[in-house]
Amino acid sequence: MADWQVIEGNITAPKGFKAAGITAGLKPSGSPDLTLIYSETEAIAAGVFTTSQVRAACVDYCRQRLQAKASARAILVNSGQANAGTGKQGWDDAVESAQLLAQGLNISPESILLASTGVIGQRIKMEQLRQGIAPLIQSLAPNGGDKAAKAIMTTDLVPKTIALETKIDGRPVRMGGIAKGSGMIHPNMATMLAFVTCDAAISTALWQQMLSRATQKTFNQVTVDGDTSTNDSLFALANGESRTAAITEMGPNAEKLEAMLTAVCQHLAKAIARDGEGATCLIEIQVTGAPDDQAGRAVARTIAGSSLVKSAIFGRDPNWGRIAGAAGRAGVKFDQNNLRIKLGDYVLMDQGQPLPFDRSAASNYLKQAAAGAYLQQDTVLIQVDLGTGSGQGTAWGCDLSYDYVRINADYTT
Amino acid sequence: MADWQVIEGNITAPKGFKAAGITAGLKPSGSPDLTLIYSETEAIAAGVFTTSQVRAACVDYCRQRLQAKASARAILVNSGQANAGTGKQGWDDAVESAQLLAQGLNISPESILLASTGVIGQRIKMEQLRQGIAPLIQSLAPNGGDKAAKAIMTTDLVPKTIALETKIDGRPVRMGGIAKGSGMIHPNMATMLAFVTCDAAISTALWQQMLSRATQKTFNQVTVDGDTSTNDSLFALANGESRTAAITEMGPNAEKLEAMLTAVCQHLAKAIARDGEGATCLIEIQVTGAPDDQAGRAVARTIAGSSLVKSAIFGRDPNWGRIAGAAGRAGVKFDQNNLRIKLGDYVLMDQGQPLPFDRSAASNYLKQAAAGAYLQQDTVLIQVDLGTGSGQGTAWGCDLSYDYVRINADYTT
Repeated sequence: MADWQVIEGNITAPKGFKAAGITAGLKPSGSPDLTLIYSETEAIAAGVFTTSQVRAACVDYCRQRLQAKASARAILVNSGQANAGTGKQGWDDAVESAQLLAQGLNISPESILLASTGVIGQRIKMEQLRQGIAPLIQSLAPNGGDKAAKAIMTTDLVPKTIALETKIDGRPVRMGGIAKGSGMIHPNMATMLAFVTCDAAISTALWQQMLSRATQKTFNQVTVDGDTSTNDSLFALANGESRTAAITEMGPNAEKLEAMLTAVCQHLAKAIARDGEGATCLIEIQVTGAPDDQAGRAVARTIAGSSLVKSAIFGRDPNWGRIAGAAGRAGVKFDQNNLRIKLGDYVLMDQGQPLPFDRSAASNYLKQAAAGAYLQQDTVLIQVDLGTGSGQGTAWGCDLSYDYVRINADYTT
Repeated sequence: MADWQVIEGNITAPKGFKAAGITAGLKPSGSPDLTLIYSETEAIAAGVFTTSQVRAACVDYCRQRLQAKASARAILVNSGQANAGTGKQGWDDAVESAQLLAQGLNISPESILLASTGVIGQRIKMEQLRQGIAPLIQSLAPNGGDKAAKAIMTTDLVPKTIALETKIDGRPVRMGGIAKGSGMIHPNMATMLAFVTCDAAISTALWQQMLSRATQKTFNQVTVDGDTSTNDSLFALANGESRTAAITEMGPNAEKLEAMLTAVCQHLAKAIARDGEGATCLIEIQVTGAPDDQAGRAVARTIAGSSLVKSAIFGRDPNWGRIAGAAGRAGVKFDQNNLRIKLGDYVLMDQGQPLPFDRSAASNYLKQAAAGAYLQQDTVLIQVDLGTGSGQGTAWGCDLSYDYVRINADYTT
C-alpha cells in the first residue's frame, strides 16, 4: 500500500544534507555529545515543541526563530546538559552557541536552530562547546547521519534512524530521520529530539501543517513514563534539492509526502517506545469503535500509559481487567457492555464480559512477543473496541520493569 | 487550631454504630474478607464514586440507591473479587447480596449499600457470601470497627483508621473512618474504599455537599500509580445519635463538622498514599502561588504522580529538575522565571534558577524523612511556589520502588 521504499541511511539520505557527531567533552561519559545537521541550501523549516511551562532556552529560542523566518541551514544539538531551568544565563548560552556556529559556517545566525538534551538545571558546558564548534564543522560529511544519530543519545541504548524514498512526478524524493528519547517520554512531546530531512520542494505553511498532523498521530501517541520534558523538539527541514516542482497545496503529491512524513515519524516514535528506559518490549494499543479519532487516540494513550498495564505486561500476565480499567478512566464516554479486548489473537473480553481463555497460552503470547522485540520485529499487540462509534487511534508504549526504577532512582547522583 | 481531638477507635466510635469483619472464604489467602457496617437507626447517607466508564456492579447499584433515597442502615463490603467487568451476572449478584443481608438484618433492601474490591473481572464468590451473611451479622459488635478495617484490605499492609470528637452546642459529636487502598490509586477516586460514620444530625443535601468538597481536597489529591479504579467508593453515614440539633444550613456548627469531615478524609487519604504499593515513604506536595486553588491542586497532583519524581525520591536523590519538569506539564500557566522549589528546609530553585545547595545534606533529608514514614510521623515535603497568584493546593503520593513493579507484575497469576 505504501508508496515508498525503505532505503539505506537516515538524515543524510536526502540530497544536499550533511551531518556530523563528535565528542566535545560535554558528557562525563566521554561518548559523542555534539551534533550538527546541515543543509547546503536554505531549507524550509517546521518545528513542534514541548507544551511544558518549564522550557529549555533552546525551545524558546527556536520557537521565536521559526516565527520570524520558517527556514534554516543548520541544527546544532548538544547532549549532556538540558539547559532548562537555567534562566537568563541559559538564554545567553543559547544565543552564543548559535552565533559561534554561524560564524564557523559563515552563514546568518538566523539560519541556525538549536536543541539540547541532558540534565535539567545544568547549563551547557560552554568552554567545551566553544572548542567543539570548529572540529564539528570539520567533521561534516555526506554520510554523517549515523554519527549524528549516536551523538544525540543520552540514556538511549540504540540509535533510532530511518530513510524512505518515493517518486514525485517521476523524480526520486527522499526523507530521513533520527531521534533520541528514552525516559520522560509522554504525549505532547517527551524528552525526545527528532530531526527529519527531506529534499522535496514544498511551501512553508503546508510543511508545518503536515508536521503538526503527523506529530498528533505519532510522537504524541508515545508514552514511556508519562513525563513530558522541558526540551522536546522536532524539526523537519525540506530543501527542495530533489528539483521536483514545489508543492503548494494539498493534492496527490502532497498526500504522498505527508504519508511518508507520517511513516518516518511513526517509525521514530515506535523506536523511542521500544527503547524506553528499562523496557523489555514495545506495546502497541489499537483502539477502534471510539466516538471519534481524538477519543480513540486518548483511550489508546491512557492504556499505553497505565503503570498497572505496563507492569502486568512486564510480568507476562494477560490481566485484561487492568486494560479495561485504564480504558474506563480515559475521559471518553462509552458503554462498558460493548467493550471488547484482544491480546494478540486471544479475545479476553467481549460485550463487557470476561471470556474463558487459555491463560497460559495468552501468557505465552506475551513472552514470545516480548522476546521478538529485541529483534525489532514483534510487538505486544492490544486491541480494544469500545463499540460506540467509528473513531480509532493507536498508541505505543513499553512495559514497566525493575530497570526503569533502577535507572531513574539515581540519574543525577 | 483544630476544634476536635483524636480519640480511640474508628467507625464504631460514634454512637449507634456497630461493625463486623469475618473470613467468609472469598479470598484465597484465608484472611478476613467480608465486612458489615451497621447503624442502629436509619442514617443520612452520602456517597462519592469512581468516574470511570468501566464500573463495578456495586457502584452503579449504590449510585441508583442513593439517588432514590439518601439514607441507609448498613454497608456490606466483600474483598477478593471486584465484581467489575462482570456484566448482567455481576449486577444480579449485587442485588442478591443486598437482599440476603436485608433478610438477615430484617430491614429493607433499600437501606443496604454495597462495595467490592479485588480482582477485576471476577464475580463475587456467591456461595461463600451466602454462607457468610449469618455469621457476619452474628459478629456485629459495638467495637467491631477494627475487624472491619482489616477485612476490607487487599494488598494493604496496614489497616487505616481514625476517630475524632468535637462538641456541638456543648454535646459530644464523634466521627470515625476506615479506608483501604494501595494500588490503582489516583485522583477521582482510586481503588480505594473509605467509610465514614458520624453521630451528628444533619440534612442530606448538606452532608453530600460537605463530602464532595472534602473529597476534592483529600481523596482526589492522592495518587499512587495514576490508575483510577472501577470500584472506588466513599460512603459517609450520619445517624443523629449524638442528639444534637439538626444542622440544616452552613454556619459555625456546619463549618466545624465539615472541617472535621475533611480532617478524617485527609487522614485516610494520606494513610492510603503512605501504604501505596511498594512505597517506602509518603510524599506531600504543597503548591502555592497558583492562579487559583484548582490550578494549585492540579500542579500538586501532577508532581505527586510523576514517575520520574517518584523514582528520584526512592533513590533519595534531590533531583529538583524533575519537580520543575512535572510542574511545567500540569496544564497550568505560569512564568518559569518565578518558580521556587523547596525540599524540606532546602531551597533548590528560586526565580526559575537553580541555587547552589548541599546535595548530600538534601539527600540526607530525604533518607531521614523516608525512614520516619514507617513511624507514620515524617513525610518528604516538597514545596513549590509558582509565583503567579494566590491559589494553593496539596497532594500526597509515594515513591516508586522495585517492589511496586514486583507486586504488580504478578497480581492475578
